[in-house]
Amino acid sequence: MDITLSIDAMGGDHGPHVTVPAALKALAEDDQLNIVLVGLEDAIQAELKAHKSSISPRLRVHHATEVVLMDESPQSALKNKKDSSMRVAINLVKSGEANACVSAGNTGALMATARFVLKTLAGIDRPAIASALPSEDGSTYMLDLGANADCTPEQLLQFAVMGAMLVSCVEHKANPTVGLLNIGSEDIKGNEVVKAAGELLRDSHLNFYGNIEGDDIFKGTVDLVVCDGFVGNVSLKTTEGLAHMMGKFLTQEFKKNWLTKLMALGAMPVLKAFKKRLDPRLYNGASFLGLRGIVVKSHGGADAVAFHHAILVALEEARSGVLRRITEQLEIEHIKPEPHQAISAEAVTETL
Amino acid sequence: MDITLSIDAMGGDHGPHVTVPAALKALAEDDQLNIVLVGLEDAIQAELKAHKSSISPRLRVHHATEVVLMDESPQSALKNKKDSSMRVAINLVKSGEANACVSAGNTGALMATARFVLKTLAGIDRPAIASALPSEDGSTYMLDLGANADCTPEQLLQFAVMGAMLVSCVEHKANPTVGLLNIGSEDIKGNEVVKAAGELLRDSHLNFYGNIEGDDIFKGTVDLVVCDGFVGNVSLKTTEGLAHMMGKFLTQEFKKNWLTKLMALGAMPVLKAFKKRLDPRLYNGASFLGLRGIVVKSHGGADAVAFHHAILVALEEARSGVLRRITEQLEIEHIKPEPHQAISAEAVTETL
Repeated sequence: MDITLSIDAMGGDHGPHVTVPAALKALAEDDQLNIVLVGLEDAIQAELKAHKSSISPRLRVHHATEVVLMDESPQSALKNKKDSSMRVAINLVKSGEANACVSAGNTGALMATARFVLKTLAGIDRPAIASALPSEDGSTYMLDLGANADCTPEQLLQFAVMGAMLVSCVEHKANPTVGLLNIGSEDIKGNEVVKAAGELLRDSHLNFYGNIEGDDIFKGTVDLVVCDGFVGNVSLKTTEGLAHMMGKFLTQEFKKNWLTKLMALGAMPVLKAFKKRLDPRLYNGASFLGLRGIVVKSHGGADAVAFHHAILVALEEARSGVLRRITEQLEIEHIKPEPHQAISAEAVTETL
Repeated sequence: MDITLSIDAMGGDHGPHVTVPAALKALAEDDQLNIVLVGLEDAIQAELKAHKSSISPRLRVHHATEVVLMDESPQSALKNKKDSSMRVAINLVKSGEANACVSAGNTGALMATARFVLKTLAGIDRPAIASALPSEDGSTYMLDLGANADCTPEQLLQFAVMGAMLVSCVEHKANPTVGLLNIGSEDIKGNEVVKAAGELLRDSHLNFYGNIEGDDIFKGTVDLVVCDGFVGNVSLKTTEGLAHMMGKFLTQEFKKNWLTKLMALGAMPVLKAFKKRLDPRLYNGASFLGLRGIVVKSHGGADAVAFHHAILVALEEARSGVLRRITEQLEIEHIKPEPHQAISAEAVTETL
């Protein structure tokens, strides 16, 4: 199936130096993929030339005159950068010229722009951020990872529906298990929002496993972990901190003296294999779910390997028809479409 | 300074097999320590005998006829086990016969019993659970780790006051830094409760660092991390899960074939040193803060090394006068004592 992706070529810490080679790699691997690189034409062309490549029927460059800065406020991006590479890449999804968009630009601006341009799906209050994480069992998906600090039980149900359809489509799992992140396995455990969300999930048509606890995320107890964006973000960042500390301690122990350095040399192949299994680049690419279009956010500091993975995430989402599946499941769950309301730029950024 | 600790000798998965040798070790190390072992006298005496030890002026046995089970409900423990080793150990703190109590019994029952017997300090709504965690910089304290799933901003301030005084006393840090766990460093970040708590903390006399994120916990950015019990519990358990997965992956890589097994053998001293640095047994002993008495909770599965560490935590708290310091700081922060209310067993367990 032919898929066209729009890529915000200027986004992220490294811009075209990363986005262009990653796009070229993806094109070389998949002859049914088309890519539109959006951004400053000169910069993109220079990078294409540096890779001995050029535009082709499957690779277009779409000029956009502005760039959203990595520390720019969502408000400023929305108001002042109407011809930014980020916004134009999303516009191409809106107009149907692209099936999905990928950006390593700043999260707040990308979320605000995507919400403003694409709007949310009927029945969805607010979009959520989902990503795959490594687990003992392969991988586990989790949402929301930080878009919504305060959530209602109804929103947690919406997240569950969207996330379950994502896993179902992208991982080709017929009926993925859904776990509600909590502080105990019994139904009566947790805060008020989570207890009410548990009731909604038990009454849903999803494959609800029940409550899970923090340690279940990496055990791979369920296919999808549902939580509010505050808990999701804290929990994810905590693990980043722990992994960093463990890595640092291991390095320190191996560098203690000439004998331990020798041991490190001997164990290097194993340590490398271990590191590769947890390589965060191979989990790069977070899905913005709940929009009327597919948007994938790459880590801002991504290198070409990581950005390439984010492209694959967008490609798989587009190819597997995740939007249609989410819409269908929202209907099954009787999550009713609200009458469509025009949303202003102010309203979008106010709630960020 | 002479300190007497009451020890729930029956608590935990292993009862006297663990609590008795740990107590004997602590007594041997500190000649100003007295211990009362509370529980089934025969079982305790048998264990003492197995260690070629017996009662002495510094080691008493206090018979208690009942044992709270590890999966018993707090309600049942409170109502039906009035002569349990757990309850009697806490009674000794209440009566002043012991300066602090240590138990590896079940958390819910211990918290309910401690609240019912000791009551909360004037100005404190609900007790919180605090513990030290390893960090790149030494150690970081964190609370609440799971006692309170729903918190008000005022409660988060109370946690901060109690936690800061704990760190100040136990770690001998004059003015420990306090961080509010959040999903961004700016004041406007976070959910409504955390934003309001941030304002209270900025107005307090504590050394408030500001918002911190999940990865700051293990970086050691601050001395004390404050969060509600839902976030604290999820975040702590998530790290347990990650550490378990990383350990499993490392083992798998080293066990892959005869060559990697050889490498593991070569690297063993370093791997052991690494493991020791993160040994959870050396962080065992969580403080129940906010009660009119010192209660330290050991992990239920603790071995003698771990339980011994929990004893040291209780000893240090008692010796450093943490209760007095908390009371003083609550006054400085104008956290007003409410008129004392009698609390029923039902009221205690209802809110668990």
